[in-house]
Amino acid sequence: MKKRQISASNVLNEAYKYGSSFSRGMAVEFPQYTMLYISGTASVDEKGDTYKPYDFDAQVERTYLNITKLLESENATWHDVVFTTVYIKDMSDYSKFNDYRTEFFKKNNVFPFPASVCVQSRLCRDDLLVEIEAQAVVEKKENSD
Amino acid sequence: MKKRQISASNVLNEAYKYGSSFSRGMAVEFPQYTMLYISGTASVDEKGDTYKPYDFDAQVERTYLNITKLLESENATWHDVVFTTVYIKDMSDYSKFNDYRTEFFKKNNVFPFPASVCVQSRLCRDDLLVEIEAQAVVEKKENSD
Amino acid sequence: MKKRQISASNVLNEAYKYGSSFSRGMAVEFPQYTMLYISGTASVDEKGDTYKPYDFDAQVERTYLNITKLLESENATWHDVVFTTVYIKDMSDYSKFNDYRTEFFKKNNVFPFPASVCVQSRLCRDDLLVEIEAQAVVEKKENSD
Repeated sequence: MKKRQISASNVLNEAYKYGSSFSRGMAVEFPQYTMLYISGTASVDEKGDTYKPYDFDAQVERTYLNITKLLESENATWHDVVFTTVYIKDMSDYSKFNDYRTEFFKKNNVFPFPASVCVQSRLCRDDLLVEIEAQAVVEKKENSD
Repeated sequence: MKKRQISASNVLNEAYKYGSSFSRGMAVEFPQYTMLYISGTASVDEKGDTYKPYDFDAQVERTYLNITKLLESENATWHDVVFTTVYIKDMSDYSKFNDYRTEFFKKNNVFPFPASVCVQSRLCRDDLLVEIEAQAVVEKKENSD
Repeated sequence: MKKRQISASNVLNEAYKYGSSFSRGMAVEFPQYTMLYISGTASVDEKGDTYKPYDFDAQVERTYLNITKLLESENATWHDVVFTTVYIKDMSDYSKFNDYRTEFFKKNNVFPFPASVCVQSRLCRDDLLVEIEAQAVVEKKENSD
């Protein structure tokens, strides 16, 4: 069993660069599949700055981009995601979130949808309005390893 | 490895019927066992309406019923649940929650208890007071598949 | 597949001793590895009392101690942890939390860091300021079982 950290530093800086001791994600390899544990991911850019402070719609889009790139770094896609936990700073944004996600999954042909939960929580920075963590199970290709 | 969505539409509508793009649960089949990821589940009925708005005790009961039926759809029970995450809108309801859960597990002979966490969070609808997500690991029967 | 509850009763009482029907953690044994699901763990002592009420720094230290002992009960360490969920009662304590965690992981030579998320939530007791849940994947020794 091998474990390694996941990163997508072209869109999202490494958290430990500003003193936060967590990985953007962890990959755990089992014989036939790999489990991906994607950290709580928000609208943060490659320099570690908040992308579009206080702008809910733009932040949702960036959050999905960041997670997509983290998945891609492991040759995974949203089809491999089995669960997401969504934290929203203000639950009155929930319907906007749902609209975006519905479009996003339709555009990417993701069905069945991952299981999920969404609750309201204050996040680590005041200007961040949404944060999503994700868990994926990725089947290994026959000819890999 | 097969993945499929879980549903229990006789007690709990499909979330995507009202525009929420998540499954009520996901089942991931591995060679010897199946992992179940049950979405955040609340006191919602088969039409998608809140069952007993603002009534904590009734909502807890309904939430456990809904999860029980989601588990049953995969021939699983609460004995297979390894972790639950409990979100309560008002933490002053925590002792009532504990009392219900203790009785429920006693009645269903669930021991050891699942691991768990309980925090306070505002939920997706104002009239919902409790929401629970669950993860289960279900052993496959020798003669199945 | 065997499941068993995890405990570390020399530092942390059993939750069911005060009527909370959850295990401090669950271990699920698979053929080649064991998955550990550590419950939301806070600054609670072996009698079930809050250790250092309202003292954030002392509570973070105790919380890490409690989880360390739960891991040790399964011959696991923080190197096996793949994900943590951190709940803080007041997000203004986040940088203090990060400083402690960075030191703790440095001292214990933990790298890569686990994936993680941190949000603000009110916890089950007013005098508790931090709570952490953790998931670990522990490889089985060749000569065990």
